[in-house]
Amino acid sequence: MSILVVGSVALDSIQTPFGKVKEALGGSATYFSAASRLYNDVNLVAVVGRDFPQEHVESFRQWGVNLDGLQVADGKTFRWSGRYSYDMNSAETLDTQLNVFATFHPELPESYKESEFVFLANIDPVLQLEILSQIRKPKLTVLDTMNYWINYRKDALTKVISAVDIVLLNEAETRQYGNTFSLIRAAHKILSLGPKALVVKKGEYGAVLFANNGDLKDSFFFAPAYPLEKIQDPTGAGDSFAGGFVGYLASRKSTSMDDIKRAMVHGSVVASFTVEDFSVGRLRALTRDQIQERYLDFKRFTNFEPTCPWSDSCTHLAPCEGAVASQ
Amino acid sequence: MSILVVGSVALDSIQTPFGKVKEALGGSATYFSAASRLYNDVNLVAVVGRDFPQEHVESFRQWGVNLDGLQVADGKTFRWSGRYSYDMNSAETLDTQLNVFATFHPELPESYKESEFVFLANIDPVLQLEILSQIRKPKLTVLDTMNYWINYRKDALTKVISAVDIVLLNEAETRQYGNTFSLIRAAHKILSLGPKALVVKKGEYGAVLFANNGDLKDSFFFAPAYPLEKIQDPTGAGDSFAGGFVGYLASRKSTSMDDIKRAMVHGSVVASFTVEDFSVGRLRALTRDQIQERYLDFKRFTNFEPTCPWSDSCTHLAPCEGAVASQ
Repeated sequence: MSILVVGSVALDSIQTPFGKVKEALGGSATYFSAASRLYNDVNLVAVVGRDFPQEHVESFRQWGVNLDGLQVADGKTFRWSGRYSYDMNSAETLDTQLNVFATFHPELPESYKESEFVFLANIDPVLQLEILSQIRKPKLTVLDTMNYWINYRKDALTKVISAVDIVLLNEAETRQYGNTFSLIRAAHKILSLGPKALVVKKGEYGAVLFANNGDLKDSFFFAPAYPLEKIQDPTGAGDSFAGGFVGYLASRKSTSMDDIKRAMVHGSVVASFTVEDFSVGRLRALTRDQIQERYLDFKRFTNFEPTCPWSDSCTHLAPCEGAVASQ
Repeated sequence: MSILVVGSVALDSIQTPFGKVKEALGGSATYFSAASRLYNDVNLVAVVGRDFPQEHVESFRQWGVNLDGLQVADGKTFRWSGRYSYDMNSAETLDTQLNVFATFHPELPESYKESEFVFLANIDPVLQLEILSQIRKPKLTVLDTMNYWINYRKDALTKVISAVDIVLLNEAETRQYGNTFSLIRAAHKILSLGPKALVVKKGEYGAVLFANNGDLKDSFFFAPAYPLEKIQDPTGAGDSFAGGFVGYLASRKSTSMDDIKRAMVHGSVVASFTVEDFSVGRLRALTRDQIQERYLDFKRFTNFEPTCPWSDSCTHLAPCEGAVASQ
């Protein structure tokens, strides 16, 4: 059950109140890969320039990421430069140099076409559609985008939204696409186009899931953000959320609503590690055990009724054997 | 186990994008009473002017609120006028006329002094301290305040914070009191003064609990806001949250951390009804069954692992009788 990701691999220069980095490894496909490789095999489709440092290629190799789809083009690698103030929920872009990314035309190696879990990171929706049409039998397709494409490629974007299973957007993008201040109404507009679910990312306020299965009561789920005392750099939080989200579902070989809820929590857990360091610093050292530990923390942070320790093996047909009144 | 509330009873004139009301029943103690009376007996301490409409007095009576502590003073009732734009998280105050509230000096009827659950709504912290000193054996004391007192009465406010069990603040007030952008650090500063817990209200982003019992992992809890398609008027959301919160704990006669978590959910549920109409319109018609229904919705919205349906009567000493593999 391999995962396919198409998106950017970039060199990021970032300032936050807590430090800065220059030309560090970044890009949507990078953050996604660094996270999802902890769950499953990853096939990367992206482009870099001739100047892309070999050590970063080695990083992808160490993570076990399949690089057959990584093009090396004449020219310079995509560069992004941004700054965050104390409100870490949104970045101020200082400079964008598309370089080789401007003429990027993704091509799928033959072996990638069997990928079953697909993440279309934030690129031109026209290219996202091309990719989609090449996948033979996707089990789950997940889409990300940004305000730029909502402004300038809304028709193509609407086509991709209609074609995928799950859409990931941040709060402002959801309202912008839906053209309404009401998040719920905007969500319903997006779901009416066809996707099974919409995940709205709210930064430090967590993420909410709207699912396309009728009554709101059965189609809403909320995952808070992990409480962190110090955030170094929020860059990549959304893409690594996607990495934990898609990665978990691929590892479970599932697209059930129950697993999608748990995938939201995995996304939040992975994103909480990402922001603790610049670039992919924290993701490099991350382990499944550390993910599991914070996953259990999330249970404590959100459960207000006791959960059954036997739930994995039981259908609750009767009270527990030897049950005694607890209070 | 009666509840004591001291705060304002007011006549509110409010505009939102969805309508407006003129001189409608409002005030912190009003919203709190209209909510907490669904859980327990309520003793009200407040002041109104000679112009206070008799029909509003009748409303309190219908809710079963004890009015022995309601003073009727010469002069006009406290009036507040405010406006909300599409971002319903904060109001713009258009006019405040303190009137009889300016010289309010709360006095506790003898019978109130035995109250065990106490809510000090947003008034001068000097008065809050006076009230506290008159309660004989409070089981739980809960405090609310506002930016004005943080600016102009910080010393007195710090004394009340040190003297109560639980502090309720909104996000901006928490950061302002803690003098730091980090919500977690601000929370720790407040908890270091002595209260057992701090509840930070985040409007449409829900509410978080920080408890003073060591490790963050055992002292953090998150309750989202109930997803509503349309909010008529956010006025009173915080005070009715407090009403559901304190009301639930009083009805349980408990101050355990498990019950405090459930009280957070009750607060969120009640607040979600409040904002569906202007003034106390929705709270008037609210029933315990409707509260219970949304409480169960909250379980669905936040649980990502199965809960045990027998949890109320069982300590999970063994797997459920007749258990079969669920997957």
